[in-house]
Amino acid sequence: MTNILLKIAYDGSKFHGWQRQPGQRTVQGELEEVLEKVCGVPAALEGSSRTDAGVHALGQCATFRGEFGIPVKKIPLAANNLLKDAEILSAEEKPEDFHARFSAGGKTYLYRFAIKPKITVFLRDHVYLLAKRPNVDNMLEAVKYMEGTHDFACFQAAGGTPRETTVRTILETSIEERVRTDSAGNEYEAVEVSVKGDGFLYNMVRIIAGTLADVGFSKIMPEEIKKIIASKDRSLAGPTAPPGGLYLKEVYFGKRT
Amino acid sequence: MTNILLKIAYDGSKFHGWQRQPGQRTVQGELEEVLEKVCGVPAALEGSSRTDAGVHALGQCATFRGEFGIPVKKIPLAANNLLKDAEILSAEEKPEDFHARFSAGGKTYLYRFAIKPKITVFLRDHVYLLAKRPNVDNMLEAVKYMEGTHDFACFQAAGGTPRETTVRTILETSIEERVRTDSAGNEYEAVEVSVKGDGFLYNMVRIIAGTLADVGFSKIMPEEIKKIIASKDRSLAGPTAPPGGLYLKEVYFGKRT
Repeated sequence: MTNILLKIAYDGSKFHGWQRQPGQRTVQGELEEVLEKVCGVPAALEGSSRTDAGVHALGQCATFRGEFGIPVKKIPLAANNLLKDAEILSAEEKPEDFHARFSAGGKTYLYRFAIKPKITVFLRDHVYLLAKRPNVDNMLEAVKYMEGTHDFACFQAAGGTPRETTVRTILETSIEERVRTDSAGNEYEAVEVSVKGDGFLYNMVRIIAGTLADVGFSKIMPEEIKKIIASKDRSLAGPTAPPGGLYLKEVYFGKRT
Repeated sequence: MTNILLKIAYDGSKFHGWQRQPGQRTVQGELEEVLEKVCGVPAALEGSSRTDAGVHALGQCATFRGEFGIPVKKIPLAANNLLKDAEILSAEEKPEDFHARFSAGGKTYLYRFAIKPKITVFLRDHVYLLAKRPNVDNMLEAVKYMEGTHDFACFQAAGGTPRETTVRTILETSIEERVRTDSAGNEYEAVEVSVKGDGFLYNMVRIIAGTLADVGFSKIMPEEIKKIIASKDRSLAGPTAPPGGLYLKEVYFGKRT
């Protein structure tokens, strides 16, 4: 059996999330259908992350096994000819025991805010529009309090897969102000939050983003983050920010880094 | 009767074109529905341009008349609360005889090519993807031969509204190479063609774009453009470039400039 790791990008606004669901267009469902055509055998994908409806990916990973009728290197091009809103960036053979989810040592997510520009129609599914400029210095101070190993129960939404523990490690964070263009070429000012962690709870990055937005508009002061984390109380954190601003940027394998 | 001019942006990938059609989502249809709710009277919009399915607008214009139950200045915000993929940028009162189509003296269209980047899923409905870099100097030489008053029958597709004449004036052209970002923030290299004219034939800018792409890849030499225009023969020009790369950028009123 060959074990293959795919790296995948997709526009989450076109799908009802990663996970296969009857009667819904999902990334996993569409990829499995296309891979079966391309590889000539049924494909059961294991994704590194079950991204929600509307969440995008620049570097989702997934593994699948089989005896294929096509050289591994040819899979991306052949599959991409049949795909529209998802794209296989690379395919490589991995050892038998490698698994997209269980072998993953960490992930980086990006959350993008945009200061509301004059034209918003080309942006709304891909950023969280802010009516005015947030205080980015305060956001940066706040996100630094989140780094390290903590019980992040305050940043966990109800409804996810039950977890053994809500302790996670946030390895690295950054917030950058960037000039971006929408898909029509119009410039806008973006505030981009990057969070690298060894694992994430259900909706964790979106709740972090919503909390940072509250910090940016002084509804929460930066130093309150410490108390919010210590409280383990979801109701003290900010709202869950919309899915369109969230991007699964990278999945790390090998030892936890 | 108040006569109102709207300036409108929309993401053409979400609509079956401008013009109202039964059972299809169109920009005109959706705007008229929303304006009727907002203004309290039926709204019959006259657009400056009947953009095709997939074509975007940054500055489409449209007029409509009525006795409104809402101050003109409040129309954009009220309507935009009900709109998703189209957006009213401004509303202003105009003299009784002003008409979005008949008063228009010219328009600028933008056509955007992208040198195919690694990730394309966030771009494909909004640019024309080129597998490699075209010769932009040659494209620039070619587009300059199109400036001025010519019979542009060679750049007219079959199937449009019949026109009295195929003579038009291209007032200004430019081609610029720009670094843009897709809606996920990934940078790519764009080649942007801007064409300002006093009027355009059916699919004219898309055929110009397809012809320029052929020039960029040396299928057509720049100086051949003169012969192609003189021939009035559609079959000598390049293919019709896809609608997703086309943007109606601006409509000019007043005397033809």
